[in-house]
Amino acid sequence: MFISFEGTEGVGKTTLIRSLYEYFQQQGQDVVLTREPGGTPMAEQIRSLLLSVNHDEQMSNDTELLLMYAARAQHLEQVILPALQAGKVVLCDRFTDSSFAYQCAGRGLSREKLQLLNDNFVVKMPDITFWLDAPTELGMSRARERGALDRFEQEKVSFFEKVRSGFAEIYQNEPLRMKRLDATQTPEQVFKDALEQIQHKL
Amino acid sequence: MFISFEGTEGVGKTTLIRSLYEYFQQQGQDVVLTREPGGTPMAEQIRSLLLSVNHDEQMSNDTELLLMYAARAQHLEQVILPALQAGKVVLCDRFTDSSFAYQCAGRGLSREKLQLLNDNFVVKMPDITFWLDAPTELGMSRARERGALDRFEQEKVSFFEKVRSGFAEIYQNEPLRMKRLDATQTPEQVFKDALEQIQHKL
Repeated sequence: MFISFEGTEGVGKTTLIRSLYEYFQQQGQDVVLTREPGGTPMAEQIRSLLLSVNHDEQMSNDTELLLMYAARAQHLEQVILPALQAGKVVLCDRFTDSSFAYQCAGRGLSREKLQLLNDNFVVKMPDITFWLDAPTELGMSRARERGALDRFEQEKVSFFEKVRSGFAEIYQNEPLRMKRLDATQTPEQVFKDALEQIQHKL
Repeated sequence: MFISFEGTEGVGKTTLIRSLYEYFQQQGQDVVLTREPGGTPMAEQIRSLLLSVNHDEQMSNDTELLLMYAARAQHLEQVILPALQAGKVVLCDRFTDSSFAYQCAGRGLSREKLQLLNDNFVVKMPDITFWLDAPTELGMSRARERGALDRFEQEKVSFFEKVRSGFAEIYQNEPLRMKRLDATQTPEQVFKDALEQIQHKL
């Protein structure tokens, strides 16, 4: 089973992923914890390029999108597919939906280009995607408390509103794959809701 | 005018590019010298990922292709397009044809995927492409004399035969853009032939 986790910054993805990781381990299930962009040493190098703040050279939208998919292709081939083939559960912090929400809904990059990369370079989509949804201001203030903001987190609130609407659009279009979790709830309740969806899927 | 230079290792691309660079400067023409993969600080970082030898993690074919096009998108937007818009001559060491020859003809990667990336992420093709062609063994022995071989140069001769046939295929399909230069000649003669083609194009 391949599960991805989506949402804007500070909505509690990391906490939920850790709880599910422990849950699956307690069930005696092999489980792989991974994240995007990144997930392999080589993909992590690509991730660090994507997240670095460079004041001398602006990264073009196309470059950002292609780097995301370069890291994703590596991650799929090296980590996700081998784990699934070995019968393991894969928990992935962000996947294709983040590319759509941040690059297309957020930055206005061509949806056609993204769709084209998805169709041709993503050989396996998640069985379930959890969208942790909360009002943007709540997530932003939680992210700020964590310390320094990286390049994505430096964006304005209005940007994150667009990103959120991007996730909402996927949720409307793919209700069978994407499950919305109310992230204003306690972490315990979010975990409980997620577990219910997983058991329902099984 | 946008001119790219193609060919397998050791065929004399660098020498020809330097001669043409000096020629254009002597003509009082602004000229920009650049290369792929790379061409901007950010694209150079991507280049170093592509060329590094990593024994722990094999780079997937898709990753290699997507990184090439990520660097290319950055290079086009930051260097090539601004230079052309300012009326400069751009001399580029390798461009899309190397991706086709090395990744598709050489490694057997999908031609459809490459075509798709070309069609959607390459907004400007060269006005002239010089293909410096020589028997593979000649180029390889020249490259070896230069010192340590990088990841691409460590490939076997049979691989470079395939790459050469990839360039030959483009030459057959796009005779108006791609001009073949006989790289077994002296550097002076290769330069003279190239200049003739440029003047003919103008």
